[in-house]
Parts: sequence; C-alpha cells; structure tokens
Amino acid sequence: MDQTSYRTLDAGGIREFLAGLPAIATRLGGVPEQWQVHEVSDGNLNNVFLVTGPAGEVCLKQSLPHVRVDPSWKMPLDRTYFEAAWLAAIGPLVGELTTEYLHFDPELYVLVVESLSGHTVLRTALMQGADWPEVAPRIGTFVARACFGTSLLARPFEDVFDARRIFAANQALTRITLDLVFDDPYRDHPRNHWHDPALSPIVQDIRTSAAALLAVENLRRRFLSQPQALLHGDLHTGSIMSTADDTRVIDGEFALYGPIGFDCGMFVGNLVLHFFATPDLAARQAVLRDIASFWHSFHEQFMALWNANDAPPPGTLRPLAYGPAAHVVQQAFMDEVMADTIGFAAIEIIRRLIGYAHTADFDTITDPRLRATCRAGALAFAYYVLDHLADMRTIADFLSCLGENERKGI
Amino acid sequence: MDQTSYRTLDAGGIREFLAGLPAIATRLGGVPEQWQVHEVSDGNLNNVFLVTGPAGEVCLKQSLPHVRVDPSWKMPLDRTYFEAAWLAAIGPLVGELTTEYLHFDPELYVLVVESLSGHTVLRTALMQGADWPEVAPRIGTFVARACFGTSLLARPFEDVFDARRIFAANQALTRITLDLVFDDPYRDHPRNHWHDPALSPIVQDIRTSAAALLAVENLRRRFLSQPQALLHGDLHTGSIMSTADDTRVIDGEFALYGPIGFDCGMFVGNLVLHFFATPDLAARQAVLRDIASFWHSFHEQFMALWNANDAPPPGTLRPLAYGPAAHVVQQAFMDEVMADTIGFAAIEIIRRLIGYAHTADFDTITDPRLRATCRAGALAFAYYVLDHLADMRTIADFLSCLGENERKGI
Repeated sequence: MDQTSYRTLDAGGIREFLAGLPAIATRLGGVPEQWQVHEVSDGNLNNVFLVTGPAGEVCLKQSLPHVRVDPSWKMPLDRTYFEAAWLAAIGPLVGELTTEYLHFDPELYVLVVESLSGHTVLRTALMQGADWPEVAPRIGTFVARACFGTSLLARPFEDVFDARRIFAANQALTRITLDLVFDDPYRDHPRNHWHDPALSPIVQDIRTSAAALLAVENLRRRFLSQPQALLHGDLHTGSIMSTADDTRVIDGEFALYGPIGFDCGMFVGNLVLHFFATPDLAARQAVLRDIASFWHSFHEQFMALWNANDAPPPGTLRPLAYGPAAHVVQQAFMDEVMADTIGFAAIEIIRRLIGYAHTADFDTITDPRLRATCRAGALAFAYYVLDHLADMRTIADFLSCLGENERKGI
Repeated sequence: MDQTSYRTLDAGGIREFLAGLPAIATRLGGVPEQWQVHEVSDGNLNNVFLVTGPAGEVCLKQSLPHVRVDPSWKMPLDRTYFEAAWLAAIGPLVGELTTEYLHFDPELYVLVVESLSGHTVLRTALMQGADWPEVAPRIGTFVARACFGTSLLARPFEDVFDARRIFAANQALTRITLDLVFDDPYRDHPRNHWHDPALSPIVQDIRTSAAALLAVENLRRRFLSQPQALLHGDLHTGSIMSTADDTRVIDGEFALYGPIGFDCGMFVGNLVLHFFATPDLAARQAVLRDIASFWHSFHEQFMALWNANDAPPPGTLRPLAYGPAAHVVQQAFMDEVMADTIGFAAIEIIRRLIGYAHTADFDTITDPRLRATCRAGALAFAYYVLDHLADMRTIADFLSCLGENERKGI
C-alpha cells in the first residue's frame, strides 16, 4: 500500500478532504467552512473525528503510524483498510447493527462512516447504570448473522478462501491480540500491570496451573487455526455504541477469520467483568440475564439461518446427511462454539485484569479494598473456569458458576 | 497472472525456452539441437517432458488450460505456480525427499525440476511386486518435516499466515479435491463410475448410513477449516517416485494449508488399496508393515522436531506449560492427526473405487470375479472404518481391522 502521500489530517485537512467527496459533502450540507470538526478519539489506536455540517454529520477515522496512546509503539497504517474491508463484508449481513460505510481512502488510510447521535459506548452506559435488556440479544443477532454469513455454511469455499486471504494480512493487529491476550498475562512482561496486591497470588496460581495453561495453549491454537468465520476480533463493551433502542457494533479493525466463540467470548467476558465491577445485586442479576439472552439470541439466529429451508444456504458445507443426523452435526458445531465462548471469556477476563488493557468498569468503585476484592473475585472466577473447562459445557453451567459468586456476595 | 504470452510448448519450443536459461543450458550441456525432448505425461493434468542433453537431464512441466485427459474440462494455468511455491517452501525442509527446484516461468507456467533416473512411480513399482521396506518410513519423514516446518509450531504466525494467503488462492485444484473426494462419491454424479455390480449395494449402504455421511461431513469441514500445515494435497502412491534406496515426493500442485492427517490419510488409503489389490499374502503383510512403519516414522520425526531442546522451534505456538503438561498437548495433537489419518484414508479408498479416479492397482488381477471381490472388500473395509471411526483411535486398531480381512483371505 502506498504510504508516500500519507499525512495526518488536522481539522483543516479533514474539511479539505471531505470537500472532495461529493456524496459526503452533500450529506454534510453548506460549505466546508461551516463544518465543525470535533475530535472524539477514545480507543488506543486511531484518530477519530465527528464532522458536523448544517445538514448532517459523519464520523472520520484515520490510522496513525503508531499506537495513539503510545507514539513509541510503531504500527502499520493499514488497520483502517481492514476495518473498511470488514464493514463492507458484514454490513450487508447485519444491516443496522453496525454503522453505514461511506468511504475509504487507501492513501490517507481514512475511513468515513455514518456518525451516531445519542449513542453511548456500552461500557460507559453500563458504568452509568443503564439497564437495556435488548442490547445483549442484539449482539447475539449481530454475531450470528456476521459469522454465519461469512462461513463455509453460507458461502462457496472460494469466497471464504478469498476473504481469508484478505484478513490473513491483518497481522499487526492479530499480533497485538496474540501477545496481549494469549501470551503476556501468562509470564512476566513489562506490559502487564495490576495495582491490587490481592491479585498477585491468583496470578501465581494461574501461571503454575497445568490445567489453566493447557487451556490457554488450546485456545491460542484455536484462535490461529480455526478460521470458521469473519470475526470482529475485539468485541468488548467498548466496541459497541448503543441507546436503549438502537445498538451498533463498531471498530472492526481487528477483524480476522477465526473461531466464532472468540467473538462470543470477548463479549461475555466483558459482561462478566462488569458483573464483578458492580456490587449492586440487581445490576448483577441484569448481567446474568444479559449473558443468557445473548447466547440464546445467538444460538437461535444462527440455527435459523442454517435451517432456512425455503432458501437453503449455498455454502460448500451443504449437508450430506439429512434428518436427525443433520441435527447431530449442528449440535456438535454449537457445542464447540459454546466451549470456545467459555474459554475465550475466561482469558479475556484475565488479560483485562492483569495485562496491558485497563478495564474502566472497576473505576466506579471508590473504596480501594472493595475494588480489590471485586477484581480478585473476577480473576479467581476466570481461573476457576479455565481450570474446570471440561465441566462447563452449557451457558447454564457457566451462569450457575457465576451466580455462586453472586450469592456469596463477592 | 499474465496469460497473454502463454503458449503450449512443443519440443522445439522447449529447446528454445531452456536455451534462454543459462544455468539449465549448462546442466544439459552441448547445444540445444542435441537435446532430446521426450514426453512422459502421466497424470491427468499437465504436460511433462524429460529433456536430455550430453551432460545432464531436467524435467519440464507445463500447465495446460484444461485437464490433459479431458480438454473440455477447462482449468486455470496457475497450478504449476502453486507447485513451484510448494517446492520452494518444503524443499529446504525435506532435502532429498523431493526433487530439486530449478526454475519457474510465470508467463508460460513452466516448472523445471531435477529429473529422476532409475526411479519408478511407487504405484507401478508396487504393482510390479517391488518390496522396498524403506519407502514408507521415508514418506513418514517427508510428511513430518514438511508439515512441522510449515506449521505454527515451527514458525511465527506471520510467516504461516503469509503462506496460507498464497495457497488459499489454489482454488481450482482444491475445488477438484472437494468435488471428487468429498462430494461426488456420496451422491449420483456422472463423474462417478464403477464396473463391478458387486460394489453397488455397498455404495447404497454408504450413502444411506448416517454415521458414514456424518464422518464425511466432518472430514470435509476439517479439510477446509484446519490449516495446520502446508500439505502436499494429493499424496497417493502415484505422487511418489522411488528406487529401493531413494524416494522422492513429486507433483505438489494440489498444495494447500490443511489438516496434517489429510496427507497421511491419502498415503495410507492408497497402501490399503494396494493391500486389497494384491491377493498375495506375503505382499499383504508387507503393506501392513509399511502402514505401521510410515506412521511410526512420521510420529517419531514429528515429535523429535517438536522436542528439539537444543534448538527450540521458534513457532508462535511455543509451550506455556512444561513438563508432563506439555506431553498432554502433544499427545492430544497426535491423536487428532491419527483420527484424521484414519478418516481421510477411508474416504480416499472410497473415491478411488467409485469416483472419477481410476485405481490401476486392481488391473493386475485378471480374473474379473476375483477383481470384483477384491474391490468390494476394499470398499466394505472403508465403509466399516467410517462407520466405526470412534472405535479406531490408534494405528494398531486400524491395522488390526485390516488384518481381519487378511486372515479372512478376502
């Protein structure tokens, strides 16, 4: 990709750039001098701006040649390219569960999408006490549609292999996931950090537990070697913008072909983190409800797409066996996704407590001792799950284990 | 890839082409007019020539825009490109277990490799009664080195993803495997054919057995979704040239990233076919020995590479757990390869008896009734294996089941 004409856009540069795109200029209305450019960069990686004109608003995202929050950590520019490719691939499958794709510039690595108004980052909304029961099932629908529709169940293998070829080049961000999620937390590394000494003995337990480490090895291998579907790749509660009525998955720059349970597990893991970060019992019950309704919705939608008899999916993996036998295949497939979901949820919890990423949810707890207890509870739960993966085969097993903590008031 | 300057080379064109490659011209010696061009096309797909000069000989392979044996079956030219890429990737890993790569021309789709003298196609040698005990273990070594060295166990994931990107484009030949191996035999299709009516009831049994069809579905899914290593992709006894002392794997044009057990299973399946095609009991015992020694050699070499403590492999899948726990991971990995090997062997046997490919081994049996009985025995065995995959977990289970046939004299 040509990087010679790349430059980081400031407000003036953004106005000039968008003025050259007639459809977007029309959407904004008025003249460029009237357009308000407002920086809203929030994630770790990119510059993000809202551009508001008399008639409308767009969101503009530009890759930087380094991690936004750490300029010494160099990074290739192509991550907005992969986000654009992800959005182009899944947009038609998920409809209004993501943002509308408007433009991508391959020299400036600028992606322009629909802006969202009135939406809040889901993590923030949860921290503010929002209780939106429809959000989790919407995410279930999102994962079901995006994953089914990009899998060998729905598409000829040639299409899937072509898509795998595109996203197998998304290596800088896959390397980040690999290091931060699957590696650093399980050894001494300067990127790790945790403030509460109460976590240290649990960290030691995890790092010396053969069962836990074998589970992590297995999940890491599956992450890199089970290209079932096009994943979002970073589906935590910060990658979701929502109101009570409208939910959008954003920030697909980590997209890769991988195991479907990775997306499910990221989402579930972050709900579990919120569970432990909120000592309020009603709020905890709401999280249990959300995890159950997410999985139920995902499962139902995925199976509905698979069994669409009026228009059977034209995927290469068409059934050879019919009747009860076909049900066996589907059950085994979903059991595997469930097992992955639980495992990936556990390692997501671990890395967000002891690795590089900070988990804001716990910041709402002002009492340091209570905060430490809550974090230690989350870490101990994740360790327990990794250590007992073979016993946790259904979402009910997982929720029952989580509910134990709730009843104990940890 | 540019196809504008493509033309099919005849003897004169081959001399002119090689004369333009100084290293190869030197290898051949003399002047182009002295070079003998001898067509030896044998497989279904490409033109193959031996070119002999006063000083040496090379083998030249050119893709045709159609299947060689069926000009109405159109085919992209890039298959020699993938064979060249395969040879470049695995040559350094397997050394003299394949042919030396000399040149690839991306416009003519011509691949030039070392020629082999005195070597016989292994299938032919077996049919002629050759008993070369060292060949099967050499193939085990070949698969172990090629697969380990191209896997995430040996290489950083970035290298593996780059290689997957190359071979995920080898879609025309992957489509052939998918259709001929995993699909056609399990339904009515004009490409299927079998001459012996004795096979028909077994075909019907297979096509109505839920267990067999589910096994095929599972293997097909694994073929497309388990990119463990760079496979040969068509490792039957016709893709091996050998003498008693020197064995080479050739014809890697079907190369793809897939489950290691696919290569193992193709080879084992073709040995089993030879087992059933040779009513001679000593020859059958030799096949049982060869299957055991192939697996033993593969397993031993693969584990030796994995456990090379003096120079630990720099793969992304480095162990997190050590000691006995690491052994658990390795055991589980090899068990999975074993299960795949047995399953893929069974479907290879089936497709070579009732699908498009003809299996020459049985042609040596002159009595039509005996030939039909032998073919039916092979097909019934493969069906039994597919139907009892869960009970066949070791090579000993598989050989014991095969030996039952031997003792019954089928």
